[in-house]
Amino acid sequence: MPTGVPMANKQAKSSGFQWYCFRKAEGNQMVKRVLVVGGVAGGATCASRVRRLAEDAEIVVFDRGPYVSFANCGLPYYVGNVIEDEKKLLLASAELFKARFNIEVRTDNEVLSIDRERREIEVKRLQTGEVYRERYDALVLSPGATPIQPALPGADLPGIFVLRTIPDSRQIRSWIDDHKVERAVIVGGGLVGLEMAENLSRRGISVTVVEMLDQVLAPLDPEMAEPVQEHLIKNGVTLHLSDPLAGFEQSSAGGLVVKTKSGARLPAELVILSIGVRPEIKLAKESGLEIGNRGGIRVNEQMRTSDPNIWAVGDAVETQNIVTGEWGVVPLAGPANRQGRVAADSICGRDSKFRGVQGTAVCGLFGLTIATTGANEKTLRRLGITGYQKIYLHPAHHVAYYPGASPIHMKLLFSSDGGRILGAQAFGEQGVEKRIDVIAMAMQNGASVFDLEEAELCYAPQFGAAKDPVNMAGMIASNVLRGDSAMADWESLSSTKALVVDVREAEEFSAGHIPGAINLPLPQLRSRLNELPRDREIWVNCVVGQRAYYALRLLRQRGFTVKNLSGGFTTYKQIERRLGTAIGTSAT
Amino acid sequence: MPTGVPMANKQAKSSGFQWYCFRKAEGNQMVKRVLVVGGVAGGATCASRVRRLAEDAEIVVFDRGPYVSFANCGLPYYVGNVIEDEKKLLLASAELFKARFNIEVRTDNEVLSIDRERREIEVKRLQTGEVYRERYDALVLSPGATPIQPALPGADLPGIFVLRTIPDSRQIRSWIDDHKVERAVIVGGGLVGLEMAENLSRRGISVTVVEMLDQVLAPLDPEMAEPVQEHLIKNGVTLHLSDPLAGFEQSSAGGLVVKTKSGARLPAELVILSIGVRPEIKLAKESGLEIGNRGGIRVNEQMRTSDPNIWAVGDAVETQNIVTGEWGVVPLAGPANRQGRVAADSICGRDSKFRGVQGTAVCGLFGLTIATTGANEKTLRRLGITGYQKIYLHPAHHVAYYPGASPIHMKLLFSSDGGRILGAQAFGEQGVEKRIDVIAMAMQNGASVFDLEEAELCYAPQFGAAKDPVNMAGMIASNVLRGDSAMADWESLSSTKALVVDVREAEEFSAGHIPGAINLPLPQLRSRLNELPRDREIWVNCVVGQRAYYALRLLRQRGFTVKNLSGGFTTYKQIERRLGTAIGTSAT
Repeated sequence: MPTGVPMANKQAKSSGFQWYCFRKAEGNQMVKRVLVVGGVAGGATCASRVRRLAEDAEIVVFDRGPYVSFANCGLPYYVGNVIEDEKKLLLASAELFKARFNIEVRTDNEVLSIDRERREIEVKRLQTGEVYRERYDALVLSPGATPIQPALPGADLPGIFVLRTIPDSRQIRSWIDDHKVERAVIVGGGLVGLEMAENLSRRGISVTVVEMLDQVLAPLDPEMAEPVQEHLIKNGVTLHLSDPLAGFEQSSAGGLVVKTKSGARLPAELVILSIGVRPEIKLAKESGLEIGNRGGIRVNEQMRTSDPNIWAVGDAVETQNIVTGEWGVVPLAGPANRQGRVAADSICGRDSKFRGVQGTAVCGLFGLTIATTGANEKTLRRLGITGYQKIYLHPAHHVAYYPGASPIHMKLLFSSDGGRILGAQAFGEQGVEKRIDVIAMAMQNGASVFDLEEAELCYAPQFGAAKDPVNMAGMIASNVLRGDSAMADWESLSSTKALVVDVREAEEFSAGHIPGAINLPLPQLRSRLNELPRDREIWVNCVVGQRAYYALRLLRQRGFTVKNLSGGFTTYKQIERRLGTAIGTSAT
Repeated sequence: MPTGVPMANKQAKSSGFQWYCFRKAEGNQMVKRVLVVGGVAGGATCASRVRRLAEDAEIVVFDRGPYVSFANCGLPYYVGNVIEDEKKLLLASAELFKARFNIEVRTDNEVLSIDRERREIEVKRLQTGEVYRERYDALVLSPGATPIQPALPGADLPGIFVLRTIPDSRQIRSWIDDHKVERAVIVGGGLVGLEMAENLSRRGISVTVVEMLDQVLAPLDPEMAEPVQEHLIKNGVTLHLSDPLAGFEQSSAGGLVVKTKSGARLPAELVILSIGVRPEIKLAKESGLEIGNRGGIRVNEQMRTSDPNIWAVGDAVETQNIVTGEWGVVPLAGPANRQGRVAADSICGRDSKFRGVQGTAVCGLFGLTIATTGANEKTLRRLGITGYQKIYLHPAHHVAYYPGASPIHMKLLFSSDGGRILGAQAFGEQGVEKRIDVIAMAMQNGASVFDLEEAELCYAPQFGAAKDPVNMAGMIASNVLRGDSAMADWESLSSTKALVVDVREAEEFSAGHIPGAINLPLPQLRSRLNELPRDREIWVNCVVGQRAYYALRLLRQRGFTVKNLSGGFTTYKQIERRLGTAIGTSAT
């Protein structure tokens, strides 16, 4: 075990000697005063890790709220009564921090300002109004983000809530009980908004979601969000998409009316504003710390701000996306925790680096799991990235012959050059988050679709398949990159001159097919080649794309020009509405 | 799209021009005759992929059984009536192969010999006895493996079965129905044996498992198998471990008696032999193909045997383990499928390579999921590999505050130098296979435990945690490698001079603790340092190792010499029996 070697702080940092703090600390030489502003997720993680690295440091955590280290991701489920006991949301109390980590936690203490020159903060004891100052060697800002409140008429009416804290959720629960809420409007169809939709439905409340975008769940591409929207509707949720909020009114009956730009007037006894969050940067900005152009605190890889004695972590900082390189504000607990560790390491002189965010997220809605990692196609397009390909697939979550198989609907994006995985989105009833996690791990290591093809994953009939959905995604994508297959562009379906050939059996075809498609079942294909045109591109499809791939291989080797409508008729049905009515007109 | 460029076969192969077959095929120049011996998993995959790459090839699949491409992994569940319809096990019929792929399948046709000089095989039509010959350009051996039958007295008595084919499972089902089976003995506690134990139990049969090793599930290390054994016992399965089979007798009542070396006489109406499988190498051996020293057919990375015109895939071949480099026979469907694809590519002149096997496997037993990937510690020891470390952990499969959290018990092995992941084993009720799959993917890309620490995985309360079990494994292992923590060796617990300090609360300690341990709750540690020895190593423990880690950090920074008993009291309880009675005697 290394023993303590006293070193000057500056030297240690610039020398890059990784174990500086550890050695100092174990040698019991280093005393620091570390103040942490905000005691949830990143802040709490940072404080406790500093303690593990520096037993002698004096660590104080300030939070203007009544709690530290609470489970904000659990709040919707507390409102929904899935979590019945509020105490379960308190992951660690001030007393625990003191007893376990010798960390002083001051709740109901708001940090008002930072005197960077003197390395002091000004703090207000909220219960007494008293203002005092504290000196720091290292300051960590973990202020989080605040829910966006629309500046619209009636936004301050009673019955309108945001959900960010335990008191918020407690108020909503009381309101539901006290006002016999039967109808709720949720403004915003993001992750938290939809989790609230599920949880309010669970309590027997009729829920309407108002969303200004033309889709819910912005991390998904619209054609992947579409089936999720249908699932919500099927479960009784009313959606108002592409319909921005206009304001609120008190109704004559004593309830609320939510007004939208389209003119809708939605009666409700409860409104949840879930429009998004804004990084809490007031303190940082007023102290002159650099703010990024996405509105978050700018930090380097060590989570250090533009002031070398101040670090920042969590929802208030801008981080770089590892796929796109883009800076953004990502309010997720996983990255916040990693950032807290990195900041603690940096404060203690270690050279840990935050590797950036990948955008891995998951959401459970009425039995459906929706998960995503990496970039979506909207983002790639917005950034002008063109060198990518995409595939759709619908593999069963385990082998079809074992009872209970259900499909995973997946979209995979990968670079045309080399097949680097750019992003994956999936939804389904079972095994969805497993596949996204595997792909997330692959992406972290810079893997390509060829790696997915060769992955050796758990297989027994009740868990997967000898060709796991991850393998299937890899195989389909690899086939494209090797030139063995090519994908037709769904969005060109209405304008293409190609002949759409459906290779399913006649019964399947007659039960529903792409308008304008002709039917030529795979088993008859070899003997009926003369019915197909050699001077016109052929787009093949089946249920999910597998038989179509077999047909494509056959036809290409016979000299035809063929593409596969990725994901087949299943994808078609999912995106039918988006494709519009023009489809097939030119294919007939 | 590339067009056909005729090239001589030999040249193409040696030139390494990857798209040879594709170009040839799409140019419609190449005609080959490809014969495949064995039509399950690898063989079926290979045949259909050859078709996709070479429309003009003549492809014939021979199988001495009545079926091709059946779901052998589903057989235990068919016996257990989870899968009720036998037809579901037939993944593809001979008719489907013909209609869809223009592949001729000859079931009930046994290949007797190979004339390598003439490139011909001799085939027997089993129903008529007729023997005929077929010429090949490429021959693929996919003969599978046969269940090992013990050469013991009574082994041919009626009521003794193996389970490898659909007819096998049909016979077992009939036997159960016709003989009112109430008691069954399964010989062999491997994956299939235990799946059978579960499925026979499901049918109300009382099951005893006889195993010559001192543990079930050989892919697990013994201390990880121990709790699985207890789980089996709790679910009514009787285990006879370290007790080799001695023979069988007919009982006076008309049933069977299974005799073991220890002298046990186990009455049963049904016996399943699940001792393992032996690669089916008769054909390969008699034709002079190279056999490896693990008893399987030797192949190169292209799955080519020592004869350049013969390929072999599946359970009959030896493959190299990507962690240990060791050759072995791995009878798993996933690798067999990948091998089939590689062989097809190679036959068609592509330079695909089989990357080796990783040993990823999963098993579901009475609600418990057991999964593993990579090498276990037994294997590392057997190979004399010493530069590794191990950790145990027991994270909840999702956040504890969300209802229904259940622990995942995990062991992670990693290299001391650099932290390369060597293997992981885990069991638990939920989310087990997900974590093993993520680690399997990480291993495939040569990832280290530092990568696990930084993984960004799906998190919502019902799916995981901001620090996912995979992150936790990575953090604990990284802490060890960075020197921030050190793990005590459980196996030295009985002989160590170290003082075992249990840092849990007094109530927890009094409810059960490691013999000889003293109790010093973490919250009191800072004020009671003077009670601890500075001249003696201290081993800390708590429930799972987390509070102990906090204690370790504290004590080390105060100059104590400390190690963590990895996995804490939970691991202790799981391995208690193995550690024996000597524990703690020297620690008092």
